[in-house]
Amino acid sequence: MTYCVGLLLKEGLIMASDTRTNAGVDNIATFRKLRIWERPGDRVVALAGAGNLAVTQSVISQLEERINAGPDAGETILSVDSMFKVARLVGDAVREVKRIDSPAASAGMENFSVSFLLGGQIGKGQLRLFQVYDAGNFIEASEDTPYFQIGEHKYGKPILDRVTTTAMPISSAVKLVLLSFDSTLRSNLSVGMPLDLLIYRRGALKVDLSRRITAEDTYFRNLSNLWSNALKGAFASIPEYDW
Amino acid sequence: MTYCVGLLLKEGLIMASDTRTNAGVDNIATFRKLRIWERPGDRVVALAGAGNLAVTQSVISQLEERINAGPDAGETILSVDSMFKVARLVGDAVREVKRIDSPAASAGMENFSVSFLLGGQIGKGQLRLFQVYDAGNFIEASEDTPYFQIGEHKYGKPILDRVTTTAMPISSAVKLVLLSFDSTLRSNLSVGMPLDLLIYRRGALKVDLSRRITAEDTYFRNLSNLWSNALKGAFASIPEYDW
Repeated sequence: MTYCVGLLLKEGLIMASDTRTNAGVDNIATFRKLRIWERPGDRVVALAGAGNLAVTQSVISQLEERINAGPDAGETILSVDSMFKVARLVGDAVREVKRIDSPAASAGMENFSVSFLLGGQIGKGQLRLFQVYDAGNFIEASEDTPYFQIGEHKYGKPILDRVTTTAMPISSAVKLVLLSFDSTLRSNLSVGMPLDLLIYRRGALKVDLSRRITAEDTYFRNLSNLWSNALKGAFASIPEYDW
Repeated sequence: MTYCVGLLLKEGLIMASDTRTNAGVDNIATFRKLRIWERPGDRVVALAGAGNLAVTQSVISQLEERINAGPDAGETILSVDSMFKVARLVGDAVREVKRIDSPAASAGMENFSVSFLLGGQIGKGQLRLFQVYDAGNFIEASEDTPYFQIGEHKYGKPILDRVTTTAMPISSAVKLVLLSFDSTLRSNLSVGMPLDLLIYRRGALKVDLSRRITAEDTYFRNLSNLWSNALKGAFASIPEYDW
């Protein structure tokens, strides 16, 4: 399993992903699931994948191969002029990988489904955040629902539901995303440290921060402890049930 | 879907269940899922079911029919002398219903799986809490893991994980269980009000409280609002991410 969050704010975009993959509980490994393409002054595109690792890696590889094939290979993430077209490219790549792998894959019992979070900004276009489904189609975040989650999303959703607003500053939103991870990490073994974090400021057309947050990260450790205590304090502040 | 929680404390037992059932999002209804058998001075047995309603209702009906059949019908929930034997009876009833219904059920696409929380105390025996699986076998709560959840458990688990201790007073634990429901209700449409709540004091051999908590319940509404505010306060109390 996996947990990835994307949060679209007035100030910018935050994307975060864990790095654990597992095939059964006795076969776990660490893989980067957040891929960033950056051409400063022109575009930042970030893609986080959940689901079958063979499929998500193949999708990324296919997108990369196109870029490396040079100008004759047609549209690529680095050549198209809108995030909508990037979402189409990602969707097409998902469909292509599924077309190739599905006949053999469906013969086994494995689950080959995948999903992606895609965020970024190109030139004078808007900063946008998409969720790409297993079928290659996609939805876009909006003011009403400014965040998407993929993978093991339930444990970390209540705090997002209660606190998220598009107006919150990036520094708060990163805190929120990390708290959402903290809840998920505590409850589900298939989501694991380290985390990969991307911060992008609207209009910047360059990455503001791309950082790997390890289990030793001071802020994250403090956050986890402070949040446990703050939650216990919040719990204690509520009147007991009297019947 | 459904959400039920059972919490085994030094002071006693709390069990709670929502009442929503659904067959698709356009076919929802309200059913009581928490059944209590009480013979003051002798025993209190409570059973909460999640999963396919036809199966859970048949299990309860079968347990009831045995009781109503009189002394010749063999062991019943009201006649056996230990909670372990009650758990066996519930497991047997699950297996019997599955045996009868499975051949026809498996021809369709419906999910016929069920699970139960079973709590109670009989005579001089211990107060015990079990989770009965779809296969009719069961596990028992302990000091290490004093609570069980069935149904839509993920949204409401983080707060239970952080706060639950067996030493907490019943009045706190009810607050905790209701907060766990509040998080679940906010995030999942298939779990709905009203809730059914049972409070049992260890050794009492009678129900302390069996109450239906509606959406208009003053304590629950206050709890929900206070918790939202307390969470936001707790969130604000944590230092922002600085990079």
